[in-house]
Amino acid sequence: MADVDEPRSVQESLQEIMDLLRRQRVVESLVHREGEGRGGALTDRQPLVDSLVHKQNEAELQTRLDALHPADVALILEALPLDDRLRVWQLVKADRDGEILLEVSDAVRETLIADMDRGELVAATEQLDTDEIADLAPDLPDEVIADVFKSLSAEEREQLREALSYPEDSVGGLMDFEMVTIREDVTIEVVLRYLRRLDELPSNTDKLFVVDRKGLLRGVLPLKKLLVNEPEIEVATLVDRNVVSFHPDDDARDAATAFERYDLISAPVVDDHGEVLGRLTVDVVVDYIREASEAEKLKASGLREEEDIFAPVWDSLKNRWTWLAVNLVTAFIASRVIGAFEGSIEKLVALAALMPIVAGIGGNAGNQTITMIVRALALGQIGRDGARKLFVKEITIALINGLVWGSIIGLVAWVFYRNIELSIVMMAAMTLNLLLAALAGVLIPLARRWLQRDPAVGSSVLITALTDSGGFFIFLGLATVFLI
Amino acid sequence: MADVDEPRSVQESLQEIMDLLRRQRVVESLVHREGEGRGGALTDRQPLVDSLVHKQNEAELQTRLDALHPADVALILEALPLDDRLRVWQLVKADRDGEILLEVSDAVRETLIADMDRGELVAATEQLDTDEIADLAPDLPDEVIADVFKSLSAEEREQLREALSYPEDSVGGLMDFEMVTIREDVTIEVVLRYLRRLDELPSNTDKLFVVDRKGLLRGVLPLKKLLVNEPEIEVATLVDRNVVSFHPDDDARDAATAFERYDLISAPVVDDHGEVLGRLTVDVVVDYIREASEAEKLKASGLREEEDIFAPVWDSLKNRWTWLAVNLVTAFIASRVIGAFEGSIEKLVALAALMPIVAGIGGNAGNQTITMIVRALALGQIGRDGARKLFVKEITIALINGLVWGSIIGLVAWVFYRNIELSIVMMAAMTLNLLLAALAGVLIPLARRWLQRDPAVGSSVLITALTDSGGFFIFLGLATVFLI
Repeated sequence: MADVDEPRSVQESLQEIMDLLRRQRVVESLVHREGEGRGGALTDRQPLVDSLVHKQNEAELQTRLDALHPADVALILEALPLDDRLRVWQLVKADRDGEILLEVSDAVRETLIADMDRGELVAATEQLDTDEIADLAPDLPDEVIADVFKSLSAEEREQLREALSYPEDSVGGLMDFEMVTIREDVTIEVVLRYLRRLDELPSNTDKLFVVDRKGLLRGVLPLKKLLVNEPEIEVATLVDRNVVSFHPDDDARDAATAFERYDLISAPVVDDHGEVLGRLTVDVVVDYIREASEAEKLKASGLREEEDIFAPVWDSLKNRWTWLAVNLVTAFIASRVIGAFEGSIEKLVALAALMPIVAGIGGNAGNQTITMIVRALALGQIGRDGARKLFVKEITIALINGLVWGSIIGLVAWVFYRNIELSIVMMAAMTLNLLLAALAGVLIPLARRWLQRDPAVGSSVLITALTDSGGFFIFLGLATVFLI
Repeated sequence: MADVDEPRSVQESLQEIMDLLRRQRVVESLVHREGEGRGGALTDRQPLVDSLVHKQNEAELQTRLDALHPADVALILEALPLDDRLRVWQLVKADRDGEILLEVSDAVRETLIADMDRGELVAATEQLDTDEIADLAPDLPDEVIADVFKSLSAEEREQLREALSYPEDSVGGLMDFEMVTIREDVTIEVVLRYLRRLDELPSNTDKLFVVDRKGLLRGVLPLKKLLVNEPEIEVATLVDRNVVSFHPDDDARDAATAFERYDLISAPVVDDHGEVLGRLTVDVVVDYIREASEAEKLKASGLREEEDIFAPVWDSLKNRWTWLAVNLVTAFIASRVIGAFEGSIEKLVALAALMPIVAGIGGNAGNQTITMIVRALALGQIGRDGARKLFVKEITIALINGLVWGSIIGLVAWVFYRNIELSIVMMAAMTLNLLLAALAGVLIPLARRWLQRDPAVGSSVLITALTDSGGFFIFLGLATVFLI
């Protein structure tokens, strides 16, 4: 590909760096053994040679790291066990520390920060923009923040204070303060000359913000228009006034949806009066979308947060215990439901073998319904009439599923137990539990939304708990009434 | 906010449109009743008035729709029941049909296409770029494709053929053909004049592709550099040669990761020789990321694909049956495992009440492990040594969890059943099932990767099946050996 450097894949880089680290360890252990095992002339020279190899290795590692994008260094740090990680971290050029700290996951960031002294942390943080400092701030010791604060200009302090004042999940928490604003009573020519006087444009600049004398947003001038129009044309005639803008208190999730829906690269953030405060950009939004979807996935399997895969066992345990405890409680409730019917099970032991089927299929169907509804709610697809229609539909599906799958199960139960009443009870229990699952699958997310809570969180745990205990109760209850 | 139009929220628009549709239905039913119930003079005038109201309503609906972004119209179409949806679809200006068809979900697109005749479909498709036509093609009748193909220029036909030749999940399937290429032996001045001769720049243009005479990629010129440098500077001195570029056969997922990691807005797609074929842009990548994460979520709850929430019940059933069937089979296997121990349960019925706890906690813990590993694999964090370390760690966690939670469960079991042997068996079964869960949680995704399959798909179903049947077997087996 001629002059163009094909970037090496991160996996390849990771493998190379791990190989270098391993070689390094071998050299070190040799030096160590030499020093112990021998005396005299050789010992004096051998360590020298070894340490030359060592230095060469180290230099190669350094070169490799310097060539990597900060995001790739971050990934490599995450993929290394703690001792190797800190070794590599020492080799990373100090002027890239800040950027890399921003890229790594929270858990890994903790391990890196713990390895740095106050001076290093201050130096790393000072290189960053104020919005980035704000992102890092929660993980930094207070005295570091204080030092950094002192080193900022008055304007930057104001920005930092502002950035820190917004919650992480708001537009204010994601916005940056770098932007180019212009007036509308000038020509393209003037704008182009103005831009040439800048050292560089902020990244993700696809439009310039057009403001009036008071800093109020009047519209935007896309670079697309700036570049294809003649120099003598006035900005006012090209300004796009139909602007998607955000307020710092807006929900980050809604902003992400808007970016996706309207294919935005950047958008102004304005206060109540329409004054431009900052800018939201697609790179931050993409990271937010990915992180939100990761967090959802983790939560769905009962992990509180992303784990450093090489974290001490104790940290991992803490991350996993909340949900195991919740699960234990719901399992115990289900167990007590079964316990209440022990008499029936003693008389007809087939019930014990068949009851998990009723509970399991109910849980599966309930999760299908709830996923559908949560998704439709998130996309804003459920209006006033929608809920009722959905309800009828899900109940119909549950009824059909109950009869179809219930019959199959009833048939198989008959093959094993040759008890027609048992088969009928099985089918009835299946249908009723699927109806319960559909009912709960629609009502739980709607109720959560009505209570202004996130419809997604914990929905799956709740419905599984309900279809488990409910399934056992329905099946064993029906069996007790009709069979025992 | 002065001159800037604050865009109305989609939810508000949806509500308004639903209200208008409802009003429309009321008017229609009145006209209908008038026509039926009365005769003579009034009937002649009343329908006239009503139809005036009707027309007014229709005009208002039309205005509302015209003001909306195609993506918002798409969302509204998705949120409306079929009859209202088709009514609104009729009112959408024909020249926006193509764009909107691109935005709606597959399920809803089907209902809209079914409502259009061949001429309408051809007209809608012709407005689109070739890469967009390729996206729509799988849903269009063959004769429509043939008509559209005839209307294209030779170059466009070639592009369409190319776009259709790549799978949906490849870079080739996502790329577009609109791009601006320049030579490096010209000045900024020349580039700016060249751009002014264009009608417009392709959307998401943040860099120009620098090519040689043969069309081979030499580097890129970011607009940021173009704008801040003096007109007389030569492009060659500013070209960025460290370019992230893609091959049409590259995996779309990897490209999405690169966009996210390197904060890209656009990137060139080149063939084996380095010739520029097209462009990948962030808007398409963001849609891809969102769709992939949606698809994963749906799959995790056993739904095959996104559902039109107002789809006929039959379509929904088909969407859900595959996984219910799989679930049924795994539930039956678990049931047979229990069936094998019916004798033991008959003698000690407490086993029936306690066994779901062992199975449930095992499933939960296994899913936690598997989520961690799948995530680490996706991020490329597991190298050669990593796997062994992770294995040891997960086993340790399982052991600790088994002893801790097993003890708690054993204690509670003792409270209910006052049987110390039962409590010990419970604790042992819990520990063993958690070890099984950890083992499978690490091995299943690693094995799937080794077999070159996606480690995520179906992992959760597999591990839950294993910890269910395994949990029942371990608990009832131990109980049979030591208690019965």
